[in-house]
Amino acid sequence: MMKKIAVIGSTGSIGTQTLDVVTQHAGHFAVEGLAAGTNAKLFVKQVNDFKPKKASVANKEIADQIRHLIPSNVKLFYGEEGLVEVAAGTEAETVVTAIVGSAGLPATLAAISEGKHIALANKETLVTAGHLVTGLAKEKGVSLLPVDSEHSAIFQCLNGERMGDAERITLTASGGSFRDLNREQLRHVTVEDALKHPNWSMGAKVTIDSATMVNKGLEVIEARWLFGMSFEQIGVLMHPESIVHSFVEYRDGSVIAQLGTPDMRVPIQYALTYPERWTSDTKRLSLAEVGKLHFREMDMVRYPCLRLAFECGKIGGTATSVYNAANEVAVARFLNREIPFLQIEYLIESVLSKHRVQAEPDLEAIKEADRWARDTARSL
Amino acid sequence: MMKKIAVIGSTGSIGTQTLDVVTQHAGHFAVEGLAAGTNAKLFVKQVNDFKPKKASVANKEIADQIRHLIPSNVKLFYGEEGLVEVAAGTEAETVVTAIVGSAGLPATLAAISEGKHIALANKETLVTAGHLVTGLAKEKGVSLLPVDSEHSAIFQCLNGERMGDAERITLTASGGSFRDLNREQLRHVTVEDALKHPNWSMGAKVTIDSATMVNKGLEVIEARWLFGMSFEQIGVLMHPESIVHSFVEYRDGSVIAQLGTPDMRVPIQYALTYPERWTSDTKRLSLAEVGKLHFREMDMVRYPCLRLAFECGKIGGTATSVYNAANEVAVARFLNREIPFLQIEYLIESVLSKHRVQAEPDLEAIKEADRWARDTARSL
Repeated sequence: MMKKIAVIGSTGSIGTQTLDVVTQHAGHFAVEGLAAGTNAKLFVKQVNDFKPKKASVANKEIADQIRHLIPSNVKLFYGEEGLVEVAAGTEAETVVTAIVGSAGLPATLAAISEGKHIALANKETLVTAGHLVTGLAKEKGVSLLPVDSEHSAIFQCLNGERMGDAERITLTASGGSFRDLNREQLRHVTVEDALKHPNWSMGAKVTIDSATMVNKGLEVIEARWLFGMSFEQIGVLMHPESIVHSFVEYRDGSVIAQLGTPDMRVPIQYALTYPERWTSDTKRLSLAEVGKLHFREMDMVRYPCLRLAFECGKIGGTATSVYNAANEVAVARFLNREIPFLQIEYLIESVLSKHRVQAEPDLEAIKEADRWARDTARSL
Repeated sequence: MMKKIAVIGSTGSIGTQTLDVVTQHAGHFAVEGLAAGTNAKLFVKQVNDFKPKKASVANKEIADQIRHLIPSNVKLFYGEEGLVEVAAGTEAETVVTAIVGSAGLPATLAAISEGKHIALANKETLVTAGHLVTGLAKEKGVSLLPVDSEHSAIFQCLNGERMGDAERITLTASGGSFRDLNREQLRHVTVEDALKHPNWSMGAKVTIDSATMVNKGLEVIEARWLFGMSFEQIGVLMHPESIVHSFVEYRDGSVIAQLGTPDMRVPIQYALTYPERWTSDTKRLSLAEVGKLHFREMDMVRYPCLRLAFECGKIGGTATSVYNAANEVAVARFLNREIPFLQIEYLIESVLSKHRVQAEPDLEAIKEADRWARDTARSL
């Protein structure tokens, strides 16, 4: 059977790995749509390789630049409307939302409205508008299939079970680049120090978010929406090896965990083939070779950004959008060497403390809160 | 909803823990039948507590002795026929086969014939007659629900998955009382040394079987029948903490594992409530508290009885019955201080080497092979 998919954000880390999965299962996937931002060179290659019916780039300039480099029967779009066209205007059954940032939200909502399943990698979708996205998905009867390794793990551990039997879910955290430093040592870390992540090679933003644990905080908020759990039922556990990707505790005391070598192609593929599993050439996990797995409690004093995520999440409304937006600005300012590392958490907390939360915000209110949080974070 | 069950072997370790589970969920289970051997005192208490419609003990003497100590409306039976009566002659939907030894086999087959699901704890059932039991279960459309913690773990990890997607299953092994001794040190171990198992408190026979790894060998053979896997798809991994109870590797590289604190009541309960999970007061697993999990390859030279189990299993037919019977005699002789510890493996291997294997044996041929193996193991 041919699975029809579209990928928005195809030139990023998740996007390219999604297309790796497609290539590995040649003849079993049809790529109906591809959308990217400004990486014209890679995008031209992808469009020629996968021959989508529709394609979209960030703006008119890039569209004009690549038009003659791609097959003439590919309909080319650009901008926010182009993104929506690729997400919602093809015959794809599943849309991979691999785009980074808040532009992913309208496109995701448009795809859900058209009854498409979402292989969800865009964090902002659930962090800023979890109530809108899950509400619409439920109404349209579409699945939100997690792509993050932690959420995919939880999703897999819930397979065949009754949701009411799940008592608690736990996301594991590698601890990031600075897991062995104390608060005093954190005062002096540099951008270069921060970008050395022990287990994964990722973009600068995500690497910093791993070090501050904001990344885990966003995942906690996502998990709340994906699995309909309360924040009291969600835990985070330090696990430096990143082998146990996450786990579910059931009311009978049983714990079901998903494990594997770190390889994003596995959760991506699972989101595309669920409820089936297809073969993969990923490196097989050998626990004997790994030898030891370590676990320890998360220290909420050591990682105040994680504590803040739980607090925002419980407050709800626009609070989580503000958390996310303030963090984006703070990380950019750190990477730009404007502020020291520990100032990131200070900025987020300050912006949050000034914010007047709006409950059940619509898209406009979410945008407004996001804008306000960015402005405020820049001015502090 | 009331679940109707019968328990054969109610006074043993699995039997009493099964009744603990029933007590914990008072009003949700009805005990239709109970059968025990010679522990009259405990059995009288159980019959009075759980008021089964039918009960059975080992022989007429014990039956006569307890008849006036139990409610007069309980129908009392004894011997092999009594066992079959309790297993197959009640309204129980599920029969817990907690009895030890080959007497469990005819009773289990009788229960399956009557369309009862089997919560399977009696190893001999599958080790000696896996082809007959699984064939009949398939024909009658009944489930074989594993009670062993390892097999329950595998069963749970297969929940909601397609069997064809499972590539490999791995049973974990604590390593038993002598896991840190080398072959030379094993020459001199005593009965007292052997009976100190690090993680579980069990009967003498099972404790010795853990030390020789025969127990794991029997589990491998059981797993082959329960999950329809080939022996090439079954692995054993040393895991001293007994926290990861076993796991399944899927074709996409994902590993699903079941974990928990060691408590047999959890897999027993799961076998009774499947596909639901009911609450349990078992101690919750805290991985942070455990801190570290260790894994290492099984050494087949260090544990020749495990190698023999794989060999027998692949040969099939009466070979696995002979393995089991020879081991029972060898362990009895060791506990009786007739032979040293390392002689156990020697006896099993010697008896196997003398055996002429019969393929697809019927019950009579299985009994005959069992008898022959015991006689031979006694004479060596």
